Amino acid sequence: MTSSTDSLDLDAASSALDVRLAARRGALTGHTSGLAAAFVQGNLAILPASLADDFRRYCELNPKACPLLGVSEPGDPRLTALGADLDLRSDVPRYRVWRDGELVDQPTDVGRWWRDDLVAFVIGCSFSFEHALLAEGIPLRHVAQGRNVAMYRTNLETQPAGVFRGPTVVSMRPLNAADAIRAIQITSRLPQVHGAPLHLGDPARIGILDIDRPDYGDPIDIRDGELPVFWACGVTPQAAIATARPPFCITHAPGCMLVTDLLNRDLLNRDLIAA
Amino acid sequence: MTSSTDSLDLDAASSALDVRLAARRGALTGHTSGLAAAFVQGNLAILPASLADDFRRYCELNPKACPLLGVSEPGDPRLTALGADLDLRSDVPRYRVWRDGELVDQPTDVGRWWRDDLVAFVIGCSFSFEHALLAEGIPLRHVAQGRNVAMYRTNLETQPAGVFRGPTVVSMRPLNAADAIRAIQITSRLPQVHGAPLHLGDPARIGILDIDRPDYGDPIDIRDGELPVFWACGVTPQAAIATARPPFCITHAPGCMLVTDLLNRDLLNRDLIAA
Repeated sequence: MTSSTDSLDLDAASSALDVRLAARRGALTGHTSGLAAAFVQGNLAILPASLADDFRRYCELNPKACPLLGVSEPGDPRLTALGADLDLRSDVPRYRVWRDGELVDQPTDVGRWWRDDLVAFVIGCSFSFEHALLAEGIPLRHVAQGRNVAMYRTNLETQPAGVFRGPTVVSMRPLNAADAIRAIQITSRLPQVHGAPLHLGDPARIGILDIDRPDYGDPIDIRDGELPVFWACGVTPQAAIATARPPFCITHAPGCMLVTDLLNRDLLNRDLIAA
Repeated sequence: MTSSTDSLDLDAASSALDVRLAARRGALTGHTSGLAAAFVQGNLAILPASLADDFRRYCELNPKACPLLGVSEPGDPRLTALGADLDLRSDVPRYRVWRDGELVDQPTDVGRWWRDDLVAFVIGCSFSFEHALLAEGIPLRHVAQGRNVAMYRTNLETQPAGVFRGPTVVSMRPLNAADAIRAIQITSRLPQVHGAPLHLGDPARIGILDIDRPDYGDPIDIRDGELPVFWACGVTPQAAIATARPPFCITHAPGCMLVTDLLNRDLLNRDLIAA
């Protein structure tokens, strides 16, 4: 066994199943960025059933930040809609386990933490729309520079549900105007992975006071002639969970996503923006 | 007969045929803005057949500025694809007749100017997409203020064809970021009436040095938190014709459009922006 992906023969051309099996046997323990590029990757949040109804409602009330790709049955570690063999206890390369909001473990398998009342939520992730943008020739500076995307807490409050509430977190990509227009067209067709941007232009309009100091991720230059373009981000539900401090919770470790059998190309919604 | 629309019982609910018949009998001689709102209005350019191939190619090479709705057969004053009864010689409320680039007549009927070699081009107009934007609740300040839209010559050169060449002319509408994003989504679905914007944000990037001094139309305020959004404009082919100074040419008078039987709602292209 190894913790490196170099000897695993996993790359952009791998299948989702290849990635899940490598994670399941403990061979893949790092991030999934760039692996199995055709397939949809998701954020994972696993909560006790007592909180699941509120969290589901929170996601449904805030679909741009928390687009639900799948929800498991209480106690069932499978989620066949996202992969026939999928095992929620082992198929993410690395997990985080939380008690009362405190990080207590970062295992590669959560079999020993599993409970009969756990409900898993899989939430769309910007990897999918970044694939679509790059495929259309739109340059993404943080990808070219090998950095994490810049993310910010905004003054756009989410719709609360039960204990879940907080600001919308956005990711920012600098684009020239022509690319920004095309990026809006492309991501409008991808509602299950955050959809169209929430904002572009002046960061102060959404409460971002210093664009050079992101709240998460890495800062990125905005060059002459570029506009910052802001999309709702999957960190939003993570921040809501952190604020709620549930008695028990499991999430993926940053960048270590659940790779599903959904195809990125099937996410295209041709009818979404009919006037 | 009257030159006022007030006594004509024409309004937004009128049919295209009502408007054409009123123009045909000489009762309607003014602008068509706000009339027969369900129907597509078009810019008209009528050229000798010797120039028609070049002009058609110019339109096809520059589809965002010059989206062709219809082209007539040489000498035929009908264009049944845009209206079964349509008569190109009489159905526009007021025409302009040009010789060698000089305005020589502004009649309400061009029967006496008609020739066996004339070819008519009907080109999509922003009235259609403005209907769509207003219907989606996006405010348009120039409409609210009863002004003409602000239009600018840019440094974006059109693709030339024969004698036809020149800058892309754009219209500008100030919108807040959220409305700009929705306006991009909506107009992306309307390629026959200029489609998505060409640019938004800094006017200097497309060669507009003083946003307060449009080259055509009326200036309009850009308020705090708004971005100027720029669409290709039907004045582009008019400017190309003015530069070419053809020996003979007929156009519509400004604002006096050809009202067709096409429905604005049928212009929606659901597949246009498939990634």
